[in-house]
Amino acid sequence: MRVVVPFAAEQPKTRLADVFAPTERRELARVMLADVLRSLRDAGHAPEVLATAKIDVDAPITVDERPLNAAVDAVLAAGTPVAVVMADLPLATPDALARLFVPEADVVLAPGRGGGTNALLTRHPAFRVDYHGASYRDHRERAHDLGASVATVDSHRLATDIDECTDLAEALLHGTGATRRWLEAQGVRLDASGDGRVTVCRDHPAVRQGDRPKSG
Amino acid sequence: MRVVVPFAAEQPKTRLADVFAPTERRELARVMLADVLRSLRDAGHAPEVLATAKIDVDAPITVDERPLNAAVDAVLAAGTPVAVVMADLPLATPDALARLFVPEADVVLAPGRGGGTNALLTRHPAFRVDYHGASYRDHRERAHDLGASVATVDSHRLATDIDECTDLAEALLHGTGATRRWLEAQGVRLDASGDGRVTVCRDHPAVRQGDRPKSG
Repeated sequence: MRVVVPFAAEQPKTRLADVFAPTERRELARVMLADVLRSLRDAGHAPEVLATAKIDVDAPITVDERPLNAAVDAVLAAGTPVAVVMADLPLATPDALARLFVPEADVVLAPGRGGGTNALLTRHPAFRVDYHGASYRDHRERAHDLGASVATVDSHRLATDIDECTDLAEALLHGTGATRRWLEAQGVRLDASGDGRVTVCRDHPAVRQGDRPKSG
Repeated sequence: MRVVVPFAAEQPKTRLADVFAPTERRELARVMLADVLRSLRDAGHAPEVLATAKIDVDAPITVDERPLNAAVDAVLAAGTPVAVVMADLPLATPDALARLFVPEADVVLAPGRGGGTNALLTRHPAFRVDYHGASYRDHRERAHDLGASVATVDSHRLATDIDECTDLAEALLHGTGATRRWLEAQGVRLDASGDGRVTVCRDHPAVRQGDRPKSG
């Protein structure tokens, strides 16, 4: 089965701008991509990267400059089954990813926190994606409209994409790969001192977007 | 197996004070408790409530005014196996809860978002709890120190406790019980208009803590 990992090569992870400088965010995005590719391989798959620009990566790569939906839809139109796994899932172990391939439904969805769709698998030739807004709900509706059966993968690991600062705590708590080590090397640490959920802090502040780069 | 659901009867869910008045937060806590009890029963269990004060609830109840850790430890000291399931898990379907009882490990942990432990099962007579801070990590360490085997349940439904406003979006997106209906009745709706994750908004503002009560 084709397993595709979309990757936005430019300006990734802007919602982490309070913690990481632009170059760091690009580095983080690449480290997370490498973790996802490795986990997919360890789960027995041969993932491909679908990137907005040419990047140096240890996997077959297709470059498609169009927005995410158009690029993924082009892959789906070329034939099914296809699995699409987001590149920012550093908690996704091989075991967690393997669960995406278990249900025999026409469409399998792994919801992301906040209504996203962090991984999906389609065996239905007419299913197309819409990753904006509450895509998990929209993808369910689209499958329903096609008369396609739907299964859901209930996984905290697959639900945890890294978009916001609080997500970094999940990567430190549950990550097993290079992303966790990268975060630790940047001085990002768990902060369990508060009253509620564990958060993160950073030993040395980020170079903020708009600040002079370190080499300047 | 004893299945215990701890419940703090006073001043619940203070981190939702921006959305709900104190009486509403108490109501929400009770509706979520009812959902968890119903799901546990539908999964074939006979849950008991471990409450800080006498409440009117359709389940056997033990009142223990002590803090959470002491009250739960008293239950564990009375004999194992015991499962402890938090009362604020409105996404916890019977299928999701059933997964807690599958692994044959000495200690089974379902991590909550932000490092908590939303459900656990212990068959080890010496295991005791510590729900403060990064309890998932601490519980793993305690089990390790006892030489107890540990299994983890990777579930978004069990990981999603309702503590903060963004959690309400998960209840609206994935909830199947009374909590979702209660939120909808209060005018809490999904807001998918933003750029990132879906959030919630409320049609009519909450009476804020410190404001005069409606009956005043």
